[in-house]
Amino acid sequence: MVNSIEEKVLSEIDNLDDLYKGAHNIRSNGKAISRTSSKTITISNKQDKAGINVVVSPDTKNESVHVPVIISNSDITDTVYNTFDIGENSDVTIVAGCGIHNCTAQKTEHVGIHDLFVRKGSKVKYVEKHYAESEGESRKVFHTKTIIEVEENGTLEMELVQIKGVDDSKKDLEVNLHKNAHLIITERIFTELNQEAKSNLIVNLIGEDASAQTISRTVAKGESKQTFNFMINGKNKSRGHIECDSIIMDKAVVTSVPALCASCEDAELIHEAAIGKIASDQIMKLMSLGLTEEEAQETILQGFLK
Amino acid sequence: MVNSIEEKVLSEIDNLDDLYKGAHNIRSNGKAISRTSSKTITISNKQDKAGINVVVSPDTKNESVHVPVIISNSDITDTVYNTFDIGENSDVTIVAGCGIHNCTAQKTEHVGIHDLFVRKGSKVKYVEKHYAESEGESRKVFHTKTIIEVEENGTLEMELVQIKGVDDSKKDLEVNLHKNAHLIITERIFTELNQEAKSNLIVNLIGEDASAQTISRTVAKGESKQTFNFMINGKNKSRGHIECDSIIMDKAVVTSVPALCASCEDAELIHEAAIGKIASDQIMKLMSLGLTEEEAQETILQGFLK
Repeated sequence: MVNSIEEKVLSEIDNLDDLYKGAHNIRSNGKAISRTSSKTITISNKQDKAGINVVVSPDTKNESVHVPVIISNSDITDTVYNTFDIGENSDVTIVAGCGIHNCTAQKTEHVGIHDLFVRKGSKVKYVEKHYAESEGESRKVFHTKTIIEVEENGTLEMELVQIKGVDDSKKDLEVNLHKNAHLIITERIFTELNQEAKSNLIVNLIGEDASAQTISRTVAKGESKQTFNFMINGKNKSRGHIECDSIIMDKAVVTSVPALCASCEDAELIHEAAIGKIASDQIMKLMSLGLTEEEAQETILQGFLK
Repeated sequence: MVNSIEEKVLSEIDNLDDLYKGAHNIRSNGKAISRTSSKTITISNKQDKAGINVVVSPDTKNESVHVPVIISNSDITDTVYNTFDIGENSDVTIVAGCGIHNCTAQKTEHVGIHDLFVRKGSKVKYVEKHYAESEGESRKVFHTKTIIEVEENGTLEMELVQIKGVDDSKKDLEVNLHKNAHLIITERIFTELNQEAKSNLIVNLIGEDASAQTISRTVAKGESKQTFNFMINGKNKSRGHIECDSIIMDKAVVTSVPALCASCEDAELIHEAAIGKIASDQIMKLMSLGLTEEEAQETILQGFLK
């Protein structure tokens, strides 16, 4: 069912062994080409629009669900609506990678609109990797919009990675954290050439003792542009921490706007951001070990984005 | 010329000895009531609108110019346009305080629109204190808009203080820093009751080796609201650092949005912001020394805003 191009793209955005072991739905060029539900994880088509409902039964532990999307060689905008409902007291991993392979098409676009419910006491790890490749000139575009509720005592850990080749990405993420709910986001973005990446994040600390921590590390090369708008709203006794670090090279432009809004005297909000170039002493050191300047740069960037 | 109410308000926003020693222009209820130019500092009326031109000759050292504005007991909006032109290689202090005394009027508003030119190699200290008092119910409003050019090798140090009693303040500040020009801003804001304070700052690091450092410390009590939008644009090899610390109490709301935009790979931009309440261990410690809780709070806030 999965051809060789699809398999190559899949391997960039997911681990193939894990994918076929767990519950999964592979969407290629707008159609499900492989799907397996498990005893506790049910995947079904949405009735009213393109996309799936993923329902995880309460108390499901150490399982994973994989919902990769692939687009290859087509001049399309693939819009998909996915809903994830993770039952109470579960502990699961969601891998929602998206890959575009585009040789000939002029523009290929993936629009993903997601709802995620982390029910009471559940722990969810959500991994989203974006990757695109092409041999010719073509525009590979990703737009995602994700709205998330983390209920009482729930924890959500998000790993958001834009690996390579994405010309235009826009990410809108809104997370509502209820009583004693916790959010940890790790974001990595790499852009080069004339690529553009926008990331908008709103975190609402609604419940008592909610907490959010966001660490964003990005590298902008060439003439690429990155824009970050992060907002943490402290509406209750809660803690929020945003950290953005960007390395800028060549003629790239990075704009980082992490906003804090406290409307409760027991909200503690902190952010730190830094934009700068690679430390020249680090490059010197690696070059003294025999690396070329380019190799030294590459090594430092890899370490930074790890 | 200066009555007792005016003198009291003046003493809150300036040092009276220094004021009368240096070149000065005291504006009260829309009119200049006292003015002195010096050999090297000329103060003259603008021909086309309300306000003054302050011209400092090149090489003026260790002099100061005081341009306080007072409004007392009047239902007016006093709009004033001031231009400061500080000649090359000078070293001067500008004190631009503004005080409102309002017993009976419904709304008293001061709108100050300023241009400041710090010419090549000059060093300027600019002190702006905002203060308001009233015995009755009345609204005391300050709006200031200041556009500043700091030329090659110039340095500008700004001390911006909103002491007390201001119901509604809006500050727009835009600073353009040219080659090797430096900016240091220290801001202190205190709000209580239902007061509102907005501070918008744009710093453009235009020239090579320009640098900007902003330290903002604020306290929001009662149901007051504070909003900060700070933007540093790194357009050349330059350094920028924004630091915002806010203490939030009661039902106050603080929004802090310090933005960084780097469009040059040699721009190094950093910001840090924190919103939180007074550390309870500090209060405990002072209470163990015999202070009441209120006295302890007051002592900590005074230290924080110093």
